Amino acid sequence: MAFNIPRGTQDILPGESERWQYVENIARETCHAYHYKEIRTPIFEHTELFSRGVGESTDIVQKEMYTFADKKGRSLTLRPEGTASAVRSFVENKLFANPTQPTKLYYIGPMFRYERPQTGRYRQFYQFGVEAIGSSDPAIDAEVIALAMSVYRKAGLQNVKLVINSLGDKTSRIAHREALIRHFEPRIEEFCGDCQKRLKQNPLRILDCKKDREHELLKTAPSILDYLNDESKAYFEKVQQYLTDIGISFEVDPNLVRGLDYYNHTAFEIMSDAEGFGAITTLAGGGRYDGLTEEIGGPKAPGIGFAMSIERLLAAIDAENVKLAVDEGLDCYIVTLGEKAKDYSVSLLYKLREEGISGDIDYEFKKMKGQFKAADRLNAKYIAILGEDELKDNKINVKDAKTGEQQEIKLDEFIRFMKANTER
Amino acid sequence: MAFNIPRGTQDILPGESERWQYVENIARETCHAYHYKEIRTPIFEHTELFSRGVGESTDIVQKEMYTFADKKGRSLTLRPEGTASAVRSFVENKLFANPTQPTKLYYIGPMFRYERPQTGRYRQFYQFGVEAIGSSDPAIDAEVIALAMSVYRKAGLQNVKLVINSLGDKTSRIAHREALIRHFEPRIEEFCGDCQKRLKQNPLRILDCKKDREHELLKTAPSILDYLNDESKAYFEKVQQYLTDIGISFEVDPNLVRGLDYYNHTAFEIMSDAEGFGAITTLAGGGRYDGLTEEIGGPKAPGIGFAMSIERLLAAIDAENVKLAVDEGLDCYIVTLGEKAKDYSVSLLYKLREEGISGDIDYEFKKMKGQFKAADRLNAKYIAILGEDELKDNKINVKDAKTGEQQEIKLDEFIRFMKANTER
Repeated sequence: MAFNIPRGTQDILPGESERWQYVENIARETCHAYHYKEIRTPIFEHTELFSRGVGESTDIVQKEMYTFADKKGRSLTLRPEGTASAVRSFVENKLFANPTQPTKLYYIGPMFRYERPQTGRYRQFYQFGVEAIGSSDPAIDAEVIALAMSVYRKAGLQNVKLVINSLGDKTSRIAHREALIRHFEPRIEEFCGDCQKRLKQNPLRILDCKKDREHELLKTAPSILDYLNDESKAYFEKVQQYLTDIGISFEVDPNLVRGLDYYNHTAFEIMSDAEGFGAITTLAGGGRYDGLTEEIGGPKAPGIGFAMSIERLLAAIDAENVKLAVDEGLDCYIVTLGEKAKDYSVSLLYKLREEGISGDIDYEFKKMKGQFKAADRLNAKYIAILGEDELKDNKINVKDAKTGEQQEIKLDEFIRFMKANTER
Repeated sequence: MAFNIPRGTQDILPGESERWQYVENIARETCHAYHYKEIRTPIFEHTELFSRGVGESTDIVQKEMYTFADKKGRSLTLRPEGTASAVRSFVENKLFANPTQPTKLYYIGPMFRYERPQTGRYRQFYQFGVEAIGSSDPAIDAEVIALAMSVYRKAGLQNVKLVINSLGDKTSRIAHREALIRHFEPRIEEFCGDCQKRLKQNPLRILDCKKDREHELLKTAPSILDYLNDESKAYFEKVQQYLTDIGISFEVDPNLVRGLDYYNHTAFEIMSDAEGFGAITTLAGGGRYDGLTEEIGGPKAPGIGFAMSIERLLAAIDAENVKLAVDEGLDCYIVTLGEKAKDYSVSLLYKLREEGISGDIDYEFKKMKGQFKAADRLNAKYIAILGEDELKDNKINVKDAKTGEQQEIKLDEFIRFMKANTER
């Protein structure tokens, strides 16, 4: 009986996994420079955390969660995103009590949404995200955005576009919300069923509807930017000033609305405009969520964060034809002739590896010719050749695969020689 | 409403997560040297993969799996271990067709078992594991064991004990199995219910029973080592010879039986004998599984691997009082006075970070005194002080936190200065 991988999930295999490690290392190094520290929360949480923390009216909670009962009947859900868990942990572990705030966190890991699988969309997908919780300084908004942009820059992407918007504070949002209801209500029956529900629940999300995006009323909808009060306006201007100071270009798009219910003030998305990148162009999205800690039982602690798709980052790298400097080569392959040489090579190899030099030998009882072929296929930088004669003479032949140069080295000099020639 | 983490799971928070990264990096570097490459399989698989690949008669499959149905009614299970998924992927992606074998894989990630939570046992736990699939060379058994031991060595552990055994090939196992049945059957009613079932299913596992471990018949049970045929004996001797050549000491324990059904030939466990490590002393376990690829629908491809608990590795590090060289410090904290200096510091900080220097500023609108305190608490190596006067004079004050030495530097020299002083 043969087994298949579950629908909508993928195996990341050698050859591909090195690329994942490479971009994840960029993310980790960037977080180190920006002084964000890793948090790891469980793969599943109590279901209600997400209903509350992501928002009852969202597609995620209404349609897309992997929810199941444990043996005691408790409802658990595989995390569909990272923010709710990070904020739950911030509250439960009282991270707000640390004297220096904001608490700056990052996570990298799999998330789960039960969606129709399609190109670039998986049911298990990887996100890198950051959360800065406990500050309402517009400088931290700029920092979070700069961090995301920095990852793309280091990954070598050129065609990356930043779009920002402000959803304002509560007062501004209420005023805008009323204007939206006034605008859509008279003709709401022309919209889809979801939008009809959204009108009273969260009319902002009508602007984001995939089905109704062509409706003429969307073009004339009241802009949030016209409803920002002075404080919200000043906040948004400061964020823009910081981005300009830093040298990050951006567009303001008043129709940019994030799918989650709890966003306010700054919202942003980063898109690829590389040719041939495909229909889904969003690489990362984020924004400010000032009420979320209270919503899930904690003290007031304004936060901002983003989540970035690792799959789409890698797809954008491919679309732009960026060659990542992934080192896939092997430092040394030892070719042996005869059982004594093979036996000796096992401990020689061990010594090499313990010095951090990557090495391998044949484990298929191949003849010398096959071993040379393997060394070649594995892209070994050096090929060391050991037969019974060499062993008797306490020598080993070392060939530089690039130059073809070959030299005889004393066996007890071999490790030192390899160390000197493979230093990174 | 406050939310709690699900029972039996844990948050890995800043301060602790750096230790996880540190030991995982050791594992990754060791795999690089030993020429193993990462594979990432999904968090869940079709349930039957584990019933088949882990073994119907195991506790894992019978009691401990997180199993649920997706929206189409397919039975999915959160992976309880890594081998079945790796082998599924090896078969499904035809990795056996690569011209160089064995396929050498490693994985690091969360696994899930619904057990009673207790010290050192979590329902979500992390494993690092390797699988070498496609070789029956005893040298690869020694390699896999050496790799695991190398990780513990690099982590600084001293009190680590390797125990090995051979379960023999099929012929030897059948002979031993019959001897076990003859040995236990006359008095099987003195054993627990599970063991009574095991007598016919897999009597080897009676040796491993936690309830019956004191029964006198266990002391006199026939040893597998007496039932190894010549080939199995030669194989086991060769593995021991390689370990000895490499310089890895070990004990042979004929009662070492791994809990999974499909093991044969080499089986091993690595234990901590550090004082105060606690009741569960197994750090890692593994062995050879020559029939597994065929069991799950693939061609014959003998394999060997191990799984290592990250939680227990960290616990052993604590028990031995090893101090990991985790770098938690910040390179530079910028203290500012006045709005202009604060605004300027945002882009200055950005430049620092883009050079890979870790830096931070205050985001809580603190006075200078509070900012100095924060720099101190965050363990900043350098404190840069920028007021409006300095800004006007194009200068910045830089204090070395360790020596207390302070110097004035031109603002446009600052990044170069910091780069020179924080090179790793």
